Amino acid sequence: MGSSRVRSLWRYQEFLPVRDGDSVVSLGEGLTPLLHPVVYGDAIGLRGLHLKLDSLNPTGSFKDRGTTVSVSKLKEWGVDRALDDSSGNAGSSLAAYCAAAGIGCRLYVPSAASSQKIRQAEAYGAEIIRVPGSRSDVERSARKAWKNGKIYYASHALSPYFIDGTKTVAFEIADELGKNLPDHMVFTVGGGSLLLGAWKGFRELLEVGLIDRIPKLHCIQSESCMPVVVAFRKGMSRVKKVPERETVAAGIRISKPARGDEILEVIRRTGGSAEAVADSEILNQQRLMATKSGIFAEPTSCAALAGLVRLREKGKIEADDAAVVPITGSGFKDPGTKPLPVHMERADSEL
Amino acid sequence: MGSSRVRSLWRYQEFLPVRDGDSVVSLGEGLTPLLHPVVYGDAIGLRGLHLKLDSLNPTGSFKDRGTTVSVSKLKEWGVDRALDDSSGNAGSSLAAYCAAAGIGCRLYVPSAASSQKIRQAEAYGAEIIRVPGSRSDVERSARKAWKNGKIYYASHALSPYFIDGTKTVAFEIADELGKNLPDHMVFTVGGGSLLLGAWKGFRELLEVGLIDRIPKLHCIQSESCMPVVVAFRKGMSRVKKVPERETVAAGIRISKPARGDEILEVIRRTGGSAEAVADSEILNQQRLMATKSGIFAEPTSCAALAGLVRLREKGKIEADDAAVVPITGSGFKDPGTKPLPVHMERADSEL
Repeated sequence: MGSSRVRSLWRYQEFLPVRDGDSVVSLGEGLTPLLHPVVYGDAIGLRGLHLKLDSLNPTGSFKDRGTTVSVSKLKEWGVDRALDDSSGNAGSSLAAYCAAAGIGCRLYVPSAASSQKIRQAEAYGAEIIRVPGSRSDVERSARKAWKNGKIYYASHALSPYFIDGTKTVAFEIADELGKNLPDHMVFTVGGGSLLLGAWKGFRELLEVGLIDRIPKLHCIQSESCMPVVVAFRKGMSRVKKVPERETVAAGIRISKPARGDEILEVIRRTGGSAEAVADSEILNQQRLMATKSGIFAEPTSCAALAGLVRLREKGKIEADDAAVVPITGSGFKDPGTKPLPVHMERADSEL
Repeated sequence: MGSSRVRSLWRYQEFLPVRDGDSVVSLGEGLTPLLHPVVYGDAIGLRGLHLKLDSLNPTGSFKDRGTTVSVSKLKEWGVDRALDDSSGNAGSSLAAYCAAAGIGCRLYVPSAASSQKIRQAEAYGAEIIRVPGSRSDVERSARKAWKNGKIYYASHALSPYFIDGTKTVAFEIADELGKNLPDHMVFTVGGGSLLLGAWKGFRELLEVGLIDRIPKLHCIQSESCMPVVVAFRKGMSRVKKVPERETVAAGIRISKPARGDEILEVIRRTGGSAEAVADSEILNQQRLMATKSGIFAEPTSCAALAGLVRLREKGKIEADDAAVVPITGSGFKDPGTKPLPVHMERADSEL
């Protein structure tokens, strides 16, 4: 017995931008299960569906793939304090890896934000700074603190190292499916770091000859905030800021993604497309997947599933195609839907 | 590329009591990370500490190891409805695997119970029956329904198949550490299914000659409910029902574990011991581990860590020893501690 390779995405260290093993900050991220849920797949008309459970990463979301690399880089550089603007999965992920690295972590969040994810970040010891005003105000405060002080802006949305981490999702899919790469991958897109990472990962595998084609990469957003979808539909090459409203997919309420133009380009180059879905469709898929497959995801993750149903209806994904959908965040952290009515026990005779 | 073995604990199928591959109900459980958190280890005086993150199983707890085997067995038998009495991790785990198997699931819970775990079970479509009265009343209702109706009592506390699943924790530790098996394993014990599983797993490895000794297995309970500790201290061979009170370690508030006598025997045969810890010690370790290592566990899991500190103080674990502690449940499902006070942003000059 005894394994030849480490049980985390760091088994791909030759492809990662951290050379010094002592700098690696790992919590066992990556190598998440790839499931083939036949009953749920049949229910949405796609037997060739695979789900990549990135919700089972150490802090409960795919962000850990990016954070493990970006925080390892901070450690390599000797950074001792880092900040980010996130009240969601990226923030709780950064808080955990900073704790593991012995790096101080400060998160800027909207003053109204009150989520389990902030509570999680606090558990890891992060300092939470609440900023009144809009999301832009929060980002401005973060940038100001960065420029004023001796604290590094570890932006998950901007760091190139983050994408070098998320690219490992492509390595794992290729490792597990081998020659049977899927025809499609369908992503919930906010900042787009998982879609861009998958693109980068598949390109690297193609370059070294380990695969011979790249799946179509599709982008799904919420109707309440759909900057990439708008640009895609209009045939634009630039993603512009769009209006936004409340949505159950809070994790992708980003009105102008920093890398929007790259996302557009990747969708087009791979032959993918962009679709927007309603909250009701998202919650339907959340419930359907949980009850038919035993996988409980946060609503944001389920936008991709609702989008997959749309792509099937439009014939952009055929019944015999194979598709992989990453489940990006855990339902334990953000259940989204309300619980069903409960049954009180009645007279024994009714049991 | 392409893996020779499945990425779940079913890679050990030769050791599991399910022969027919079509009956296997898997959500990708097992193969959880084994971390070596040096800073946290140093903080509690044990550099040779490893943590086995069973909190990263599909439903967020180690129970999935047992449930995947017991529900696969139900599927093999053609059972179409199952029940259990659990408002905690075992219940939400059963609900998920039943959903994946297409088996109806009913959970009996105390009427006062109101946890995120029940909400999680509901998300998977489980029927929740609230029973007024004590825990014994809940168990009685479950048994009555089982005897009256055509519904199988899938008791996590009694099923032998459950232990056949939890034994895989020993296989994984032996796989990863090879010849360097730990001197100790320290378990949070309620029903004891993980400790008993580890014992069974190590024995099987010993019998086939893959290991040459078994670590000392220690049992940690809450001072608020400590039936095994009481029996161990008194030198008894039988575990008796004890009084119980509220505790942050709600998952191990079991006043008479069904397999208590076996637990006692295993502790003694391996040279382990039994200790009880206070809520304050549990919460201290929860916070210390999260802030020093980036691992966020539910309070119940942290009883084992508080117990490890006790065992170090008493000299039952030496500074140079190696120990593995399973982290049994996720902090996302049961944060336990209150959030820290938050900082509101003040004038810019103070940033």
